[in-house]
Amino acid sequence: MAQQERAIRTRQAILEAAGKVFDEAGYEAATIAQILACAKVTRGALYFHFSSKEDLARGVLDEAVTTEGVSPQPFKLQELIDTSLLLAHRVQREPLLRASIRLSVDQRARAMFGTRWPDWITVTAALLQEAKDKGETLPHVVPEEVARLMVGSWTGVQLTAEAMPEPPDLTDEISLLYRLMMPNIAVPGVLARLDMAPDRPLRLMSSAAGAAEDHMREA
Amino acid sequence: MAQQERAIRTRQAILEAAGKVFDEAGYEAATIAQILACAKVTRGALYFHFSSKEDLARGVLDEAVTTEGVSPQPFKLQELIDTSLLLAHRVQREPLLRASIRLSVDQRARAMFGTRWPDWITVTAALLQEAKDKGETLPHVVPEEVARLMVGSWTGVQLTAEAMPEPPDLTDEISLLYRLMMPNIAVPGVLARLDMAPDRPLRLMSSAAGAAEDHMREA
Repeated sequence: MAQQERAIRTRQAILEAAGKVFDEAGYEAATIAQILACAKVTRGALYFHFSSKEDLARGVLDEAVTTEGVSPQPFKLQELIDTSLLLAHRVQREPLLRASIRLSVDQRARAMFGTRWPDWITVTAALLQEAKDKGETLPHVVPEEVARLMVGSWTGVQLTAEAMPEPPDLTDEISLLYRLMMPNIAVPGVLARLDMAPDRPLRLMSSAAGAAEDHMREA
Repeated sequence: MAQQERAIRTRQAILEAAGKVFDEAGYEAATIAQILACAKVTRGALYFHFSSKEDLARGVLDEAVTTEGVSPQPFKLQELIDTSLLLAHRVQREPLLRASIRLSVDQRARAMFGTRWPDWITVTAALLQEAKDKGETLPHVVPEEVARLMVGSWTGVQLTAEAMPEPPDLTDEISLLYRLMMPNIAVPGVLARLDMAPDRPLRLMSSAAGAAEDHMREA
């Protein structure tokens, strides 16, 4: 059990190192040697978990679609907002997530490994469908359509923000994006109760960490 | 005069060939030899206009921000919609425009040449400011903020659409994007008069080509 746990940790350390190297150098330029140096593991340990650079890229991409930190909410639309805002918060702090975006954006890597955008669209469309079934959405909302636009917009806002001479905070930008779109998605009674504030991820995370959320809200 | 005109045409042919090659191969892999073969001009002619592959990339990027085909409209928001829809229409048909996007998305090329996203944000923010001054926008609209979100969203919707196994028509997607965002940007009286239909670019182009627009609408 301890051995298995150690193996899981080693695998995660290698993935995170691969993320860091792919994020900084790009897929083409990245080398196994760089990843080894960054992960501080032996070549044998790396090849025990991943057979090649391609395999590492696939491993990185498998971490791309994550709803970590999202908990059930009174409204499904809130869960959707939480998912997007948490990702915006984390992507600025976690090279592994940035690498999965970079691999998707890179045309060559994309040709080799595909992207996780279709999976994100599926996750988003499912949440929108649940929201629709519960009466949270306006009648014209087509979950699959809106899901495509949301995943596309999130991706482009991240990409263009990152490229700016003075990049704005991504959580602020995604918060603005939701405030622009949501009034044409949610019915008014739900809209008024949605929390799209840029500090939402911090509150969710401290709430998850055991701190009382209400206390945080007042602080 | 005839000689000058020939020089302009040659320059354009070279740029379009560079666009095609950058679009297909990416900046790194593209070679001057490929561009020469595609443009069907002599090496001397190419170097008369462009000193290097870097110079060609800059030339391609200089074509990125275009409002070609957009004419003055009763509402500034309509001009904004026309600009976006025309670009969506053209990017699917013009490798030169696709190349300028690919150069912006490519992290290495971006580090060398920057992107034209800030210029697009400036153009978009100026139109939104004019719309605001004319009373076309809802009171909460901050032109610079909405411009950033629009340019980001357009870019991401294009990128993710192109990466789909069965890419949707980009003009359809951008039309849906505007229909999602515009109800939270335009005042209702203006909103009801905006034309965001996916066939708008075709109508604008045939109208520009001298055909009577009203006739086309009825046809």
